[in-house]
Parts: sequence; C-alpha cells; structure tokens
Amino acid sequence: MFHNRMPRYEILSADAMETLDRGWRKLMTEIGVEFMDERALELFRQAGQKVVDNTVFLDPEFVLAQVAKAPREFDVQARNPANSIHIGGDSMAFGAVYGPPFVRQGDVRRDATMSDFRNFTKLAQSFEVMDSAGGVICEPNDTPLDSRHLDMTYALQTLTDKVYMGNVVSGVNAADTIAMSSILFGGRDNIVKTPASIQLINCNSPLRWDDRMLESQFEYSTAGQPVVLTPFILMGAMSPVTIPAALVQQIVEALSGVALSQLINPGCPVIFGSFLSNIDMQSGSPTFGTPESGIGLLCTGQIARHFGLPFRTGGGLTSSQVPDAQAGYEALMTMMPTFLAGANWVMHSAGWLEGGLVAGYEKFIVDIEILQMMHAEFTPLEIDEASMAFGAHEEVGHGGHFLGAMHTMERFRTCFYRPLLSSSDNYEKWMRTGGVDTAHRAEKIYQKKLEEYVAPPLDDAIRLELEEYVVRRRAELGD
Amino acid sequence: MFHNRMPRYEILSADAMETLDRGWRKLMTEIGVEFMDERALELFRQAGQKVVDNTVFLDPEFVLAQVAKAPREFDVQARNPANSIHIGGDSMAFGAVYGPPFVRQGDVRRDATMSDFRNFTKLAQSFEVMDSAGGVICEPNDTPLDSRHLDMTYALQTLTDKVYMGNVVSGVNAADTIAMSSILFGGRDNIVKTPASIQLINCNSPLRWDDRMLESQFEYSTAGQPVVLTPFILMGAMSPVTIPAALVQQIVEALSGVALSQLINPGCPVIFGSFLSNIDMQSGSPTFGTPESGIGLLCTGQIARHFGLPFRTGGGLTSSQVPDAQAGYEALMTMMPTFLAGANWVMHSAGWLEGGLVAGYEKFIVDIEILQMMHAEFTPLEIDEASMAFGAHEEVGHGGHFLGAMHTMERFRTCFYRPLLSSSDNYEKWMRTGGVDTAHRAEKIYQKKLEEYVAPPLDDAIRLELEEYVVRRRAELGD
Repeated sequence: MFHNRMPRYEILSADAMETLDRGWRKLMTEIGVEFMDERALELFRQAGQKVVDNTVFLDPEFVLAQVAKAPREFDVQARNPANSIHIGGDSMAFGAVYGPPFVRQGDVRRDATMSDFRNFTKLAQSFEVMDSAGGVICEPNDTPLDSRHLDMTYALQTLTDKVYMGNVVSGVNAADTIAMSSILFGGRDNIVKTPASIQLINCNSPLRWDDRMLESQFEYSTAGQPVVLTPFILMGAMSPVTIPAALVQQIVEALSGVALSQLINPGCPVIFGSFLSNIDMQSGSPTFGTPESGIGLLCTGQIARHFGLPFRTGGGLTSSQVPDAQAGYEALMTMMPTFLAGANWVMHSAGWLEGGLVAGYEKFIVDIEILQMMHAEFTPLEIDEASMAFGAHEEVGHGGHFLGAMHTMERFRTCFYRPLLSSSDNYEKWMRTGGVDTAHRAEKIYQKKLEEYVAPPLDDAIRLELEEYVVRRRAELGD
Repeated sequence: MFHNRMPRYEILSADAMETLDRGWRKLMTEIGVEFMDERALELFRQAGQKVVDNTVFLDPEFVLAQVAKAPREFDVQARNPANSIHIGGDSMAFGAVYGPPFVRQGDVRRDATMSDFRNFTKLAQSFEVMDSAGGVICEPNDTPLDSRHLDMTYALQTLTDKVYMGNVVSGVNAADTIAMSSILFGGRDNIVKTPASIQLINCNSPLRWDDRMLESQFEYSTAGQPVVLTPFILMGAMSPVTIPAALVQQIVEALSGVALSQLINPGCPVIFGSFLSNIDMQSGSPTFGTPESGIGLLCTGQIARHFGLPFRTGGGLTSSQVPDAQAGYEALMTMMPTFLAGANWVMHSAGWLEGGLVAGYEKFIVDIEILQMMHAEFTPLEIDEASMAFGAHEEVGHGGHFLGAMHTMERFRTCFYRPLLSSSDNYEKWMRTGGVDTAHRAEKIYQKKLEEYVAPPLDDAIRLELEEYVVRRRAELGD
C-alpha cells in the first residue's frame, strides 16, 4: 500500500479552526442529531445525553471523550497478508467506485449486472495501486435483491485476495457479511482481533442517521469491524451553500456517529468520513471535481487530524457522462487534493463516471493511470550528491545530450514513471497505430487485463463453506 | 489578474536546499556556461569572470551579486490599464500556448496560419482569466518568414488590449518589437519606465546560450523589457535523468542568464524561467503532465523564491494528440502544481496540445475551464459566524433540504463556481441535447466566442503609425 511521506497541504488557519470549533459545538448542542433507532437513543440516554423524540442533543465534551476511545490507526487484514492494509497515519488505501446502478462500455450505457460486478472485481485485483475492489462496485441488477449481498461478498472474497467492504443495506446483510468473513478468516475471533472488512455508514444529511444504516453500524461495531461514518453532503441541498457550514455540519455528523460506535463497543475502529461536493444551483444536479469540493477535501483532512481520527474522502469523481477531457480533469481535481490531504481510505478511486451513477470500464483505466501517477508524484525526492550527476555533465558537456551518458544508461529503465495509458507517440506513429484517443486505448487495456486475469488461490474447503453459506442463506431469504 | 493568497506547497527540506546549493555552485564553477556571443563574453571578462573560448566559469558569489540587482517584483503595462499585470509576489499571470507550427480543429490537424493566429489572439482577449495572448500562439506559416514577427506583433497589439510577448527570433526582430511597443505606448521612454512586453529567452540546454537568443536578450534588457531566462530541459535528453540534477542545471542556466541581463543593464527586470519535463526513455518522445514534471515544478517555485526572483513555469501541458481524457488530466497535472507553487508568469496556459506542436482550439477552451476552476480553488475560504449558517439549520431541520432556505436564496447565484464547459446534465438531458463529449461542447464555445468577439478600441493615429511601420519594415526586410 501507499505511504504518503510528502507534506500535507493545510489551508485552515488556527483562527479558522477555532471558528469551526465554536460552530460544531453550537450545532451539536442546540440543533442536535437524529438517530432513527431506539437502541441508539437508549445508549445516548444511558450516557446522560439529552434525548427528545429521535433527536440527541449532544454534549461536545462527552463526544470528544468518545472520540478519544477510538484508535488513531488500525490494520485491516486481507486473505493474502501481502495485501493487508493499515488505516491512519501516512497510509493511503484505495478502493474502486461504490454504488452505481449502471455501467458504461464504450458507447453503451446499460444496467449493471453480476457479470460486470465480477469484471470490475477482477480489474481491481489486477492493478497493484488498488488496495480493494471496494464493496458495491456496481449494482448487480440481474440478481435477486434480497440475496445479492451474498453474491457480491462471495465475489469480493474469491476473485480478489484484497481487503473488501461489507454490505450495509440492513442489519441482516451486515450479519451475513460478518459470517462470511468469519468463514474466510477462520472464525469470528480472528476478525474481531484484526478486522477483515470496512463498511460505509452514510448519514442522511442533514443531521439524521437512518435506521438501516444504524442496524448495520450496530452489527459491525459490535464485531469490531471499522465503520466509515460519512456525512453525505452535496452543498446547497444537504447542507447550506457555504463551505464552512458544510464543514461544521460534517464534523457534527461524523463525530456523532463515532460517538455511537464507541458507546456500542468502546475502542472499536472508526473512520471519519467525508463525501462533500455541491450541486449546480441552476439545475440542482450534483457536480463533482469542483473547486468547492477540492477546498472541502483539503479542509477535511486537516479537521480529521485535529480530532485524531483516520479519515476517508476523495476519489476519482466526475460529473461527466463519458471518459472524456472533463472526466480526466475532474477526476484529478479530486484525486490531487486527496493526496495533498493524505486521505487514509479512498473510495471511488477507479471507475466513477456520471456523478457515480455509472461504473465506467474505460474510466476505470483512466483512474488507474491517475492513481499510478499520483503514487509517483507523492514519493519524496531523494537529493544527494549522486543524484546531482556532476559526472554526467563532465561526460556530456555544453549543448550535448544525455541520452547515451553512463548516468542515463544506469538508470533509464526506472528513472521516470512509465505510463499505462497515456500516449506520447508522435503524430505519424499515433496515426499509424490507429489515431485513437485515450478512451479507446483504455478499452484495449481493460479487455487485455480481463483476459489475463488469474484468480488468486483459495483453499477448497473454505470456498466450499462459503458456497454452502450462500446457498443456505439465499434459500432462507426466499430468493 | 490573479493573486494567489493560498499557502505555497514546498517540498524541499533545508537540507535538500543546501545540497542543491552545493550542486549549482560546483557546476557553475567547474563546468561553466557557454555564451555564443562575443558581447556577452566581453561583459563577463570585464566583470572579472574566467572565460575560455565560449565558456564562462562563473563565480557563484559574483552571480548572486548580479541576481541581487534584479527587481523582486515589477509591473508590465497593457494598453488597457485595467489589463496591466504585476510580476512577482503572490501575482500569477497567464498567457496562451507559445510556438506550435500546427493547429487542431476537431478531427483536422493542419499547418497553422495567420488566420489561426488572429483567432487564438481573439480567444485570449475574450476570457478574463487570460492575462495575455502570449507571443507566438501558433506559427503563421502562410506569412513570409522574415517579416511575420511584424504581423504577429501587430495582431497582438490591436486584437487585444492585454500584455503581449516580444519576438525573440533575432536581434532585428527584437528591435522591431521594441519599436512597435514604443509606437503603441507613446514613445520608448514610456516603455523603459514601465515595460510593455515580456520575452522568452530559451537556453540551449545543457549549459549553452545561443547567439540569436542572446542578441534578443541584449535588445530587450537594454530597453528594460523583462526577459524570462528559461532552461529548456527534457530530463534524459537535455539534462541527466535525475530530478535533482535537472534542478541544479536549471539554477546554473537561469542564474547565468540573469547575471548577463544585469551586466547589460543593472536593475533590469528578469524572470527565473523553467520549462522542465522528461522524455519517454523507450521512445525518446517528450512527455508532459508527468509526475516528474510536477515535482520539478513544485521545487522550482521554492528555488526561485530562495533566490528572490519572480519565476515562470507551468501551464496546461499534455502529450496527448487530441483533447481527450489524457489531455484533461495531464493539463491539470501541470496546472495544479503551477498554483501550488504560485508561479508568477505562466505560459502555455491555454491551447497546448501534442507536446506543444499543436495549438488546439477545443483544448484552448478545456484549459480556460481548468484555469477558471483553479482561480476559484485557490481563493482563500472566508470562515466566520455568518458563513457557518446556523440559522439555515434552524430553518431546515434534520433530514430536510436547503434548496429553498433563505440562506441559500441569498447566495445561490454566486456561491459556487459556474462551469463554462463541464456538464453535469443527467443522462436523459445530456442525450436530448446531443450526447456530445467535452471536446464537442468546447467547439461550440470557441466558435461562439469568435463570433461575439469585439476588438478593443484603439486610437486611429496609433493604428496608422503601427501599420505604416509594418509596411515599411516588411519592404526593408525584402518580403
């Protein structure tokens, strides 16, 4: 996995942080947060918090005391130990797009299927920069609704040997994921000791945690599996239009979720989540890769560090309908700040298209290229006498060229990042090889990767046990 | 013009700076720099520097003493005072692509013409984020070689009322540019007092300044017009493959050029230039928007500040042949670090395609969008009580939406950046409006801008005098 040893780009002054600090305390105390789950309300009541109907008016000091119980950093194990990840500190881990009901392949946009789900899972397995296929890479619309979480989890567990995300549609689904992880990792004790999945718990922003998400949170936090408490904010719709207001709301929502997890199971791992962009105020459409989301992202990193929590944000987001120039610059408009902020857990790192409604095959490859470039760019430069290559100048002299210099010959294979997708062919060569744009080259790359895909080895007994679980539970669920 | 009041992203430690400092001193002292011009050599000789053939072995302390004579910041006047710019400090000024012999319009790639030159000049005039059309926006291949600098300068002076760049093909061309600026600004005294053009003086890297560039430098520095002393480095070809070596070489080249300008005319304005990318080590092709160029760019800003000089670097560079996803992410891979570094003078900000061989009409619009977004993203966030919008939460409550809130209504017109080019249309609307990608939308935008273009007013007498100058000089030059 990637360790970001470059400086963080922090844009909030101490004064600004103090203002935000006053802001979240006031909002939390006076407006409070709704929890649509009686167990949650009872835990807050027992902890001495004021509860009126479904609203909890939280004491900021109490919340900070809960936050302090959460680990600052933790591990998540993959079934291939080489792919286990660390969450927090300078670690950055990347998962694929999460949630799209549609896919795009070239000019075709259509409903996503289980076959697409498997394809994207294989692609995530095929690229080293991806630490995880994520969770719901796309909605497998051709599988039964009540049991598709079993199919998805089984695919993530068997087609990759990387970390995966747990299903959160309901408490039942969460329990199934935990049961399947227990099978894969040799028993529940093993995943309680070191968690085996990460789960996205979205807030119904503003200031409301819904029942199904909370059910899942109870299951996962009880089992010690990390939850990403994520305000889902499109500024102008789910928060006020001003960025500071969105930041304040984000703190209140994320910390209230963190507090609940710590009441459920003190010391259980949590991640400060952020999904922060804005809407187009003329059309109401969500927009991504915007200047406002970039600013929000940079602030979020600084805020999460302020509270001592690992954090999730960023990705390769775009509003674009196709993998074109806009998709390229918007994805990087999100991914560059993601690295500048040093986000620890990065969802939607590959494949996100059309505001997250579409998982794009070609876009997946575009994002892999961006991610690989970011890895290279955020690797600290080594500056020493040898790297200054005085000898090469002695060899080459004024106005010469370094192509054949000894210093070059010794380093030419590894000295620069080698693109996967980008072309620097001159015009004649580019025309000879078809004159195709980036999206068309990306098509060839993903097709080749799928052809070359080899499933990571898995013990037959475990595979059988997982299969039996899926069959049995599908029957019990009536699908 | 833009003032970048965000923090600089600095990645060189004090130790690294010290190592680089040792490196440039050694290279300058022991290998030296070639100047292919007897006047330059004589100036260095008179100043007590060791000169052997065309090589000047420079004393670093002497060079630093010359650098100290250069202004840290200065103004460049435009004929419309509202478009005058400041070079240095937190100012950032942006010019269009410079130098391409070809243009791309949609699927057509062809030789550039004077008509293209005029079109791009008009486009630069049409967008507020562009501070200058630049200089050789494209080579007008259909005009006579010896006198085309007159046509270009006339177009820049009349079709825009912004700052422009002076021709540097020869000392004669430089003198013509200065004469034409003197006409436009009411006499040579007026442009000596406040310079009226910026000129690009490229080094023939490694470590050689060629005669024609030096001739131009003599003309411009004598007249007090700023020169951008620019090492032209594609690592692996014009410098060793290691970034620190390229940085050291860049310092030696830029500072040696600065020293010459200060010998020519002490106190004349100069800009520390950088054009730093790398080649593909397999094909030898230049590559742009690379991680290495991004790192180099960030370091360059820090180094220029170390020497107290305003600096030029960055742009919307890409290797891509067409305005596709690669063009989008590579342009931003250069432009985002340009802002993080706070470059003062940014050439190639719009229209650069295919490694700089092509001026792209659609790419011009892509870059304008990127530039506008960067302006928004690098504007400091105001955080105060009002911006935290507590009242909006009181109004909206848990789980509601802010679309109709008073706080939103008061701000919805200006709260977020409004895209020029990017689409966030939902799929149905996007299909209804043609289902076209970003490049095709860009085509419509540049066409409309050209249709709507209105020339900025110019005094008839001045216009006549410029025209007479062009006609007379063209005859004298035999075209």
